[in-house]
Amino acid sequence: MHKTKQISSVQNSLVKKILLLKEKSRERKKSGLFIIEGHREIQLALKGGYEFETVLFHPELMSEAETSTLFANGSSAVDFIEITKEVYQKLAYRQTTEGILAIVKSQSSLLTDLQLPNKNPLILVAEAPEKPGNIGALLRTADAANLDAVIIANPRTDLYNPNIIRSSVGCVFTNNIVTGSTSEVIEFLKNKNINIYCAALSASENYVETNFKSASAIVVGTEADGLSKEWLNSSKQNVIIPMQGEIDSMNVSVSAAILIFEAKRQRDFK
Amino acid sequence: MHKTKQISSVQNSLVKKILLLKEKSRERKKSGLFIIEGHREIQLALKGGYEFETVLFHPELMSEAETSTLFANGSSAVDFIEITKEVYQKLAYRQTTEGILAIVKSQSSLLTDLQLPNKNPLILVAEAPEKPGNIGALLRTADAANLDAVIIANPRTDLYNPNIIRSSVGCVFTNNIVTGSTSEVIEFLKNKNINIYCAALSASENYVETNFKSASAIVVGTEADGLSKEWLNSSKQNVIIPMQGEIDSMNVSVSAAILIFEAKRQRDFK
Repeated sequence: MHKTKQISSVQNSLVKKILLLKEKSRERKKSGLFIIEGHREIQLALKGGYEFETVLFHPELMSEAETSTLFANGSSAVDFIEITKEVYQKLAYRQTTEGILAIVKSQSSLLTDLQLPNKNPLILVAEAPEKPGNIGALLRTADAANLDAVIIANPRTDLYNPNIIRSSVGCVFTNNIVTGSTSEVIEFLKNKNINIYCAALSASENYVETNFKSASAIVVGTEADGLSKEWLNSSKQNVIIPMQGEIDSMNVSVSAAILIFEAKRQRDFK
Repeated sequence: MHKTKQISSVQNSLVKKILLLKEKSRERKKSGLFIIEGHREIQLALKGGYEFETVLFHPELMSEAETSTLFANGSSAVDFIEITKEVYQKLAYRQTTEGILAIVKSQSSLLTDLQLPNKNPLILVAEAPEKPGNIGALLRTADAANLDAVIIANPRTDLYNPNIIRSSVGCVFTNNIVTGSTSEVIEFLKNKNINIYCAALSASENYVETNFKSASAIVVGTEADGLSKEWLNSSKQNVIIPMQGEIDSMNVSVSAAILIFEAKRQRDFK
């Protein structure tokens, strides 16, 4: 562990930089940096090979020794900074727990970088998901199902939005996630001979009748608008979860999970 | 429609009563009243046979004629009150939409009142769910699956919490929901010969191996603590959704949906 610096003023320029990185997608894109808060999230990002620039800890909640242990196998160039309670409370979402946050380098998430070693991949595609909480829940499910990839088509936010990191409980670091425009993603899937199954209300078959055993992409749209025509026109088969109640919609992360785990069942969870 | 009254002061005693009913579970229990906000939610409650006491509308967002139409087939004793923008903004969660809210009488949700005409019912039990958002998502799924009942064991909040109503998009009014202590619910299920399947991590079989075709209760606990021993000891079979990622948990509403729809699949969605 490097010699520890200290910050005790909320006016410190690094404090201001961190707040900007938390709040502004543009700042994250420009700098290629983002903020991770919390022990588990940091652990998962370390495991995911993320490069850490600066780690800030508040010793009343997270000791220097604990911080050091967490990074024992991490990258060696990390700067460690001890911060006061006041600074921590200015920076942290969860003000009374955790006691640690970090400035971390973004990883590329280009579609062209996506490697699919599995010959029969199972992929989730979400088009233009709007709520960070929904994206987080999708990523938790994708992690549990050990999907080969998650593709966000026409993303409306960057993946390193603090609300996505938090609601995914760090699964933004455990999944193989890439982004691209809807056209690019469709072209990519077609080139790879991956079947496209769109969750849709029209021209759809009951999802339990659909065979998901070959290479498959399950594609979900937004709760408000569903999928774009571009997706629906590229679908091998539209699938529907029968709705038998008064309301004709489920939460998008719930619908996606039902479809994904039906595919997992058909594949014997292999 | 009754002759319309008007309220233009946020100091009005009815305004204060509504705020109390929104904020305090104790007030709701004491008075047997609660608040519904929004067009769709009110429509579903009307369909669910709820008795309305007072309806408040702000004419810039919801006209008297629209309000009248909404209640055309509703109970006749309703009081209609026109409110100003200022009063509406004081009362409403969604300040720029909807324009309508109502004071409504609670319905009994006692376990002893639960009727199960279906001989092979499919029931969801949630023990002590803590987050209104999770309860709302569970209720949306329960509605979509047209479950015979939803039972909340050891509830930590009343069903008419505004956040439950909102996150369920009104499904709190479309489901057959009752509450009771865990002991009461277990006794009830055993008396009715309904098989108890607990979502648990230990002594569990893969849920796709479980036969949910007979009368079944799928029981889920909290994300933090899982189910109590009392439930686990009463289980016919503990079931598990295989977790193949880095994180060993999914959102409770997602897990419940996967289990419920596997049961629906086995039952051919009948």
